[in-house]
Amino acid sequence: MISVFEHEWLGGLFGDDEVTTLWSSRAQLGHFKAFEIALAQALEAAHRVPESVGAAASRAIEDASLDIGELKHRTGIDGLPVPELVRQLRARAGEAAEAVHTGATSQDVMDTALSLTLRALTALYSTRLTRVHSALERLEGAFGVRDLMGRTRMQAALPITAANRIAAWRSPIVQHLNRVEELRLRVARLQLGGAVGTAHVFGEDRDDIARHMAKQLGLKHDPTWHTDRSAVIEFAGQISAITGSLGKIGQDIALMAQQGVDEIVISGGGGSSAMPHKSNPVLAELLVTLARFNATQVSGMHQALVHEQERSGAAWMLEWMILPQMTAATGRALSTCSTLLDQIGSMGRFDPEK
Amino acid sequence: MISVFEHEWLGGLFGDDEVTTLWSSRAQLGHFKAFEIALAQALEAAHRVPESVGAAASRAIEDASLDIGELKHRTGIDGLPVPELVRQLRARAGEAAEAVHTGATSQDVMDTALSLTLRALTALYSTRLTRVHSALERLEGAFGVRDLMGRTRMQAALPITAANRIAAWRSPIVQHLNRVEELRLRVARLQLGGAVGTAHVFGEDRDDIARHMAKQLGLKHDPTWHTDRSAVIEFAGQISAITGSLGKIGQDIALMAQQGVDEIVISGGGGSSAMPHKSNPVLAELLVTLARFNATQVSGMHQALVHEQERSGAAWMLEWMILPQMTAATGRALSTCSTLLDQIGSMGRFDPEK
Amino acid sequence: MISVFEHEWLGGLFGDDEVTTLWSSRAQLGHFKAFEIALAQALEAAHRVPESVGAAASRAIEDASLDIGELKHRTGIDGLPVPELVRQLRARAGEAAEAVHTGATSQDVMDTALSLTLRALTALYSTRLTRVHSALERLEGAFGVRDLMGRTRMQAALPITAANRIAAWRSPIVQHLNRVEELRLRVARLQLGGAVGTAHVFGEDRDDIARHMAKQLGLKHDPTWHTDRSAVIEFAGQISAITGSLGKIGQDIALMAQQGVDEIVISGGGGSSAMPHKSNPVLAELLVTLARFNATQVSGMHQALVHEQERSGAAWMLEWMILPQMTAATGRALSTCSTLLDQIGSMGRFDPEK
Amino acid sequence: MISVFEHEWLGGLFGDDEVTTLWSSRAQLGHFKAFEIALAQALEAAHRVPESVGAAASRAIEDASLDIGELKHRTGIDGLPVPELVRQLRARAGEAAEAVHTGATSQDVMDTALSLTLRALTALYSTRLTRVHSALERLEGAFGVRDLMGRTRMQAALPITAANRIAAWRSPIVQHLNRVEELRLRVARLQLGGAVGTAHVFGEDRDDIARHMAKQLGLKHDPTWHTDRSAVIEFAGQISAITGSLGKIGQDIALMAQQGVDEIVISGGGGSSAMPHKSNPVLAELLVTLARFNATQVSGMHQALVHEQERSGAAWMLEWMILPQMTAATGRALSTCSTLLDQIGSMGRFDPEK
Repeated sequence: MISVFEHEWLGGLFGDDEVTTLWSSRAQLGHFKAFEIALAQALEAAHRVPESVGAAASRAIEDASLDIGELKHRTGIDGLPVPELVRQLRARAGEAAEAVHTGATSQDVMDTALSLTLRALTALYSTRLTRVHSALERLEGAFGVRDLMGRTRMQAALPITAANRIAAWRSPIVQHLNRVEELRLRVARLQLGGAVGTAHVFGEDRDDIARHMAKQLGLKHDPTWHTDRSAVIEFAGQISAITGSLGKIGQDIALMAQQGVDEIVISGGGGSSAMPHKSNPVLAELLVTLARFNATQVSGMHQALVHEQERSGAAWMLEWMILPQMTAATGRALSTCSTLLDQIGSMGRFDPEK
Repeated sequence: MISVFEHEWLGGLFGDDEVTTLWSSRAQLGHFKAFEIALAQALEAAHRVPESVGAAASRAIEDASLDIGELKHRTGIDGLPVPELVRQLRARAGEAAEAVHTGATSQDVMDTALSLTLRALTALYSTRLTRVHSALERLEGAFGVRDLMGRTRMQAALPITAANRIAAWRSPIVQHLNRVEELRLRVARLQLGGAVGTAHVFGEDRDDIARHMAKQLGLKHDPTWHTDRSAVIEFAGQISAITGSLGKIGQDIALMAQQGVDEIVISGGGGSSAMPHKSNPVLAELLVTLARFNATQVSGMHQALVHEQERSGAAWMLEWMILPQMTAATGRALSTCSTLLDQIGSMGRFDPEK
Repeated sequence: MISVFEHEWLGGLFGDDEVTTLWSSRAQLGHFKAFEIALAQALEAAHRVPESVGAAASRAIEDASLDIGELKHRTGIDGLPVPELVRQLRARAGEAAEAVHTGATSQDVMDTALSLTLRALTALYSTRLTRVHSALERLEGAFGVRDLMGRTRMQAALPITAANRIAAWRSPIVQHLNRVEELRLRVARLQLGGAVGTAHVFGEDRDDIARHMAKQLGLKHDPTWHTDRSAVIEFAGQISAITGSLGKIGQDIALMAQQGVDEIVISGGGGSSAMPHKSNPVLAELLVTLARFNATQVSGMHQALVHEQERSGAAWMLEWMILPQMTAATGRALSTCSTLLDQIGSMGRFDPEK
Repeated sequence: MISVFEHEWLGGLFGDDEVTTLWSSRAQLGHFKAFEIALAQALEAAHRVPESVGAAASRAIEDASLDIGELKHRTGIDGLPVPELVRQLRARAGEAAEAVHTGATSQDVMDTALSLTLRALTALYSTRLTRVHSALERLEGAFGVRDLMGRTRMQAALPITAANRIAAWRSPIVQHLNRVEELRLRVARLQLGGAVGTAHVFGEDRDDIARHMAKQLGLKHDPTWHTDRSAVIEFAGQISAITGSLGKIGQDIALMAQQGVDEIVISGGGGSSAMPHKSNPVLAELLVTLARFNATQVSGMHQALVHEQERSGAAWMLEWMILPQMTAATGRALSTCSTLLDQIGSMGRFDPEK
């Protein structure tokens, strides 16, 4: 496979099952349906479709089994899956079809699905950041009093304690936890703009419909953000900040594990095909790799800010290519870091005479 | 010159006098001195130097005229200017030299100077964002009712009003104003960690000294952030988000100004050496350029998160290369956008029959 | 799925079956085996294993069916699949195990597999570049004499012909064809360095063994390039140059397709879920997206040049994450461009009075 | 100042006088004039201006002292300096003004100046690559037989010699020398396309004029490359490959200089403001920084490939912002590497019992 995240064997190293599940077709089609159901019900509540038609459409959407092959085929032509999705849902809805997708546009569906996914991701990241934080506290409890050589610019500077270095690792984690919580609120918002962002089809009911949908989906009701990707970019920047902070931990551990430095003992390192005696700090290196990967990707997300007119296909598709990968790299970095910290058998200088 | 921001002629296009002033040697040496003065006074207040020695050192620092040639020469050797700066200041301070830089390290001086610079920048950006916002309001007042063709994926979609498009331009500006205010608090913080981030020289007085300094400098007193660059990265991400949003405006204007589309009239466009009849939307293009420039640079800032051990020269120097440029690009994008919006003589479709 | 290239529905838009096949487990394991077979035979030819042992090992490797689940599991521990691969192959080889992987290291296997993959990709790209070139020639034949408005800085400048613009599209394609041919030679080389790049296990037979293997694999015999990734980076740069040139074509076509400009007619555009009347230039936009994607990724490849000591896990893994995606984006951009050019029903200004 | 390359004190660390001179206003205006002189003479040779008018214009251009203040002012309006440059030159040329810039466009002038600058840079880089290569040979001669620990994935693997590691450093340098020579030919080409790339003003004389100019300027005569930036991008990629290879050397040296590893002795390291005893491997770190800087920038150059229609102001300006910096970083990395290699007092493990 092309992607390391779901690769037949590299997936064993880079893959993150929980993040992968959040991006699975089951989860994503679920979000698409949830949007359409919320819309159908809101249309009924706003009396824009006859009574019970919204409910009937909802049931049909809920029950619809989708032809994914056709979805793929038409995505290659339409550039996105929603026109075909809507065609299939409307066919399933029969007479209730008038409550399906009316007034909405593809981007409403896909961006709302993105909101639901990002919200789930923030919860996942919070949990894992807390786990990393706990592992760091355990480390501090176990080895905090040990001596380390403080090193600046790759040179021995002055003695510090393991607690000092662990504190430097932990401090950004606390900030990231706070920031992820803030971001959860900022990214968990409904998208509802219609064809050109004005939700014109809904007329004066726009706010009522949006509020109804937002409530049902547990999202915030914000102005249309079709072309304002600031919050998405901020999310990308924040998760790259997380992988950066974890990359720093990985880099430090790899440096501490060097023969001659010998300030850390890690169990469970990787084997070599040529040198069976070696134990490679694979997970420490992986943290550096994932940090540099996200640091690369974040640039593409910022390029995607130049979103021409009422909707840029070119800029928007760039997000699809990049953001899911960044979220997978972040999830994997967090689980990797926990595992790695738990593998630390000892920290500190073993020969204080050195 | 190598840099467009201070280039002999390209500076007329890319330069931003106010941002340049904030990064001038006068301003930066002023910040360096402000740090050392605050430290000298805090050392005296904490009774770590004899009474009046801190004050004497402060006066000497204040009055010191620095040998910048030597500063440059030694920066080539030491990798940063502070060792030589301190040598010069101590020589000027004579008997009060013991209050100069004692317990601090180069990064404390330079990062605190960075904090003071970023704080000033946030104020500048707020002012300019407000100006852009006002210009957008004026535009809306003047032309908001005019018809535009709403365009998605570069194709005519449905009619909208100029007010609709202007609202899409303005919405992120409001968010950026809020975010810049939040960031002002987050970046305006003292750095005081000493040689290896533990401020060990100050012993139990560390907090008192830091609080004293922070108060005098108008900064926040935070734990040492030598290796935690999260807030710096967040600042970089935010200003790239600003240039991205302005790049979107520039892109839209350049598209509206096309012959055949003709939805905007701009005065003061650029001349051509081959075609005197042309009026090029130079400032609109410049907004796109500056957006893509910052989107490129933000990646380097994230790469600099992998900050090994107690101080990474390699990662830190990368910030010096990139961040000032990003701030200049952002300043210039904001002033460019205001100028460009003020040059709009008309918006709207001139021939509704089309 | 996380990756658009193999996504359940987005794969219909971004996927490239031929490139995906080159990166399939079948193809990649085939390359791994080819390396080990060539080594076994070379070891026998150099009399480093007893007669017929190399041949026996070769047959065992050829016939071995591999436990991919275990490969994945161990990759998560070892950081790469080769230690487990070798364990499985040696178990299959029985008494001939001494001819399996002896003297080689994981990177030899994986980099040689990369060489074989890149060589196949250059052939694929050459074919597709030629196809794009032919499509451009056909376009020129069909519409070259038509008038277009030459546009600079997004403004009408002076009339040109369609042939003029097509020539500007075609010129880089010719260069890319030449460069891809040059690169084919530069990337198609054996990797054989052993544990630390010195191939020390082979002693004086190193060159003979490498030559033997290179000949069998149809690769060049070069000095070890474990840490010299220049050619890999050059390949990445070249394919990003291709997607950049195609992105320019896509951008031009999207601009020509605007209502009001109307200089091109494209059949088969994408549908909209909100506006059935629209025909979106999805493939033109996709070319821009793929160009910006690769332009983003190329930075990560260059970051991976900082390859510490005799082998950097961190830098090397970054290549695995990025390069396959770049090759898929390039393949898809080439096929997209051919399809799009073939969809052009007409070029030229339809109303010369305008 | 904003740019480290010409900064009042950071310039002592990052500045490169020779590269700066190549980008100086004196050199660049010299190139602009050289283009206009060559054009004036070629116009006369092609009988497109009366006899002696081309020569008169040439002399006037040669002697013209330019008003740089006005150049800067007008660049802010026109978006580039050439319209004002031409105005000044024509005013100086008086009756010979008809031979000034006739048939050319701004991009012809600026791109040809770029070609002349890149050609000079390739010569500079070749010289410096040769110097690095010689320094590596000296090192090998002096210390090649010494033992080093071969390290892979940051772990001790197997013993090697210093010569082995130096060979890995030197191998890409040789390739870079070859590639820079190839690129010299590829980038040293005239740009002559006129307003929309067709050089239409010259009619059938286009080739004669271009050949005449190319010969005089010592450049190649190629088809117009206004929008085909492939060679420029290739140049950017190549110099980033150079800084990447040098960054690898820097990273290795910084790792070797660690206490506990102690495999290298460097004289002339940087001092610390807090720890006078330290000797920091500043130049080794600088090599890493410059590598990561260029690896960041190369992405922006590739983004600039999406060059819409006959000339993209937005894409082209992005090159101006980035490429000069990349060339300065490369120049500085090369000189840094030579200095650093010359500072190596010893290589090899000092305690073979370890």
